[in-house]
Amino acid sequence: MTNCTGYAATAADAPLGPFSFTRREPGPTDVAIDILYCGVCHSDLHTARNEWGNTLYPCLPGHEIVGRVTAVGKDVTRFKVGDVAAVGCMVDSCQECESCREGLEQFCDKGLVGTYNSPDAILGGHTFGGYSSHIVVTEEFVLRVPDNLDLAATAPLLCAGITTYSPLRHWGAGPGKKVGVVGLGGLGHMAVKLAHAMGAEVVLFTTSPSKVEDGQRLGAHDVVLSTDPDAMAAHGSSLDLIIDAVAAPHDINAYLALLKRDATLVQVGVPDQPLPVSVFSLIGKRRSFAGSLIGGIAETQEMLDFCGAHDITADIEMIPIQKIEEAYARMLKSDVKYRFVIDMASLAEAG
Amino acid sequence: MTNCTGYAATAADAPLGPFSFTRREPGPTDVAIDILYCGVCHSDLHTARNEWGNTLYPCLPGHEIVGRVTAVGKDVTRFKVGDVAAVGCMVDSCQECESCREGLEQFCDKGLVGTYNSPDAILGGHTFGGYSSHIVVTEEFVLRVPDNLDLAATAPLLCAGITTYSPLRHWGAGPGKKVGVVGLGGLGHMAVKLAHAMGAEVVLFTTSPSKVEDGQRLGAHDVVLSTDPDAMAAHGSSLDLIIDAVAAPHDINAYLALLKRDATLVQVGVPDQPLPVSVFSLIGKRRSFAGSLIGGIAETQEMLDFCGAHDITADIEMIPIQKIEEAYARMLKSDVKYRFVIDMASLAEAG
Repeated sequence: MTNCTGYAATAADAPLGPFSFTRREPGPTDVAIDILYCGVCHSDLHTARNEWGNTLYPCLPGHEIVGRVTAVGKDVTRFKVGDVAAVGCMVDSCQECESCREGLEQFCDKGLVGTYNSPDAILGGHTFGGYSSHIVVTEEFVLRVPDNLDLAATAPLLCAGITTYSPLRHWGAGPGKKVGVVGLGGLGHMAVKLAHAMGAEVVLFTTSPSKVEDGQRLGAHDVVLSTDPDAMAAHGSSLDLIIDAVAAPHDINAYLALLKRDATLVQVGVPDQPLPVSVFSLIGKRRSFAGSLIGGIAETQEMLDFCGAHDITADIEMIPIQKIEEAYARMLKSDVKYRFVIDMASLAEAG
Repeated sequence: MTNCTGYAATAADAPLGPFSFTRREPGPTDVAIDILYCGVCHSDLHTARNEWGNTLYPCLPGHEIVGRVTAVGKDVTRFKVGDVAAVGCMVDSCQECESCREGLEQFCDKGLVGTYNSPDAILGGHTFGGYSSHIVVTEEFVLRVPDNLDLAATAPLLCAGITTYSPLRHWGAGPGKKVGVVGLGGLGHMAVKLAHAMGAEVVLFTTSPSKVEDGQRLGAHDVVLSTDPDAMAAHGSSLDLIIDAVAAPHDINAYLALLKRDATLVQVGVPDQPLPVSVFSLIGKRRSFAGSLIGGIAETQEMLDFCGAHDITADIEMIPIQKIEEAYARMLKSDVKYRFVIDMASLAEAG
């Protein structure tokens, strides 16, 4: 066992604060990683505050991790001490079921082991995430980072990147396809960059006039204010795919109406309340409303390599861990362009 | 112009009653059909009562039509006087857009011309449906009925049959697939028969203990009372496809939870209120919630031929047109096994 420090919440109404705990010694297949940077995902906040009703306390969030390898088990072949390594939303799965065998560990029949807030089969208790000094993860769930990418700005790719990359690939975004992105936040800004890099025509939908220019800079061919009914109507029944990154209640039927026949709206933002769907929105063009959850490990590596090839990272604002609550408050107001990343060197200053 | 009689509603709160109007003389491509039988679809009632808010009055419903050809235009090649012929939910479309060219006239860019309640481009006013003595329809929208099928019991195939056949085919029902059907009414009982004939394993979900035996007789391998949480849970994440034929508000998330990874629930019943969809129901297995609308003309003919080959018709209860309001009232209580069909010979008695 090794001592580890981090920031955790002890209850839904308690702010995150310094927290000490232990991690396992690296086993034969494990990689130990000193965490350099950890992105701040909206899921971290949902979980810290128990907004999805399933939080185990103390809750130590963080699943957009980039760091440096400090030790490897004897059976580890792809990493050595000193390598840069990354960890995303999962640290394990059964690796035996049909989904795992197909490389879709996020849909593991026995349930993926989340980087935080999942039962820890090895130590007991539950997993602790990336708002911490180091982490120990089995090699199969550790990713390589392309050499050309900025490490801090790479961290958000591990959740926001793969969460948007996977549905774009699965539903065929590419040249000749018109792809809508709803919401310009952490997920949305990655969806715009990735869909653009895949060669699709990208239409960004936002409620914020202040984000129009940014949307264009990030790669959107058109930016539509969703509050403008005429601008919305101009795209009626024209989109091949929509990635909806909004995690708050919103009128999903207004976007379903923009899909072509047989096209799909994929929800990647996760509102905690059900979204009312009009059946009329679906049947008139045989449309689908689908959901997608991060991506498998092989696809996450593919995404990182794609980002390396296209020089894509997240737009980030770096913060020290001591400002995590302030960052959460600003995230709730969409006051971040477009992802907070914790400089984990700040953790030592808290010690 | 020819005189025609039928049953129509003059307002949302008025019962249907005798109604006289005119139809066009058959043009060069038209087929004139004396109507023998017309099925009673829930859409007829929704429209007569203006429950979808788009009804044009007087409203003369009916789009499950079987009859005998009495005249054909000079350019008609596939029908002759004396033939049995059928008409479904559409009597025309633009026949030029991409969807029409692909044989998906139900998704016509300019809007399909419904058998009733659509603008009538030829006579002006709006179209009048099958609760009438005869109808005149362009040949492209007239179907052939296999010789071996009972004519009255064939009528419901024109809407209930194709509405369930099309999504079963589109989403790949067949051997090795486990297909759920929600609701045993007009649509649901056709879905069970058709999915069974396609070789799928069929699981029927119903709220009515009294329908269990019927579900088995119609071809369901298992019948689940949706009020029994354990029976529902036993099918969790196991279905390749669900056809949801319920037109009333119901808990769609309870059924989404029964879909396998990457599987689809297709709504064919059309509740007039939006259905709340939990995003958690979708993302955990990359599931889809889709809608489907009747089927194209070529596919409707394919369905009729399939029914001929498998000796499939609807289970019906015949009524005279004078009992249409009583039939509506019983339909609202699901008190019909499983489709009312109007014996149109009764219309003369009303004269």
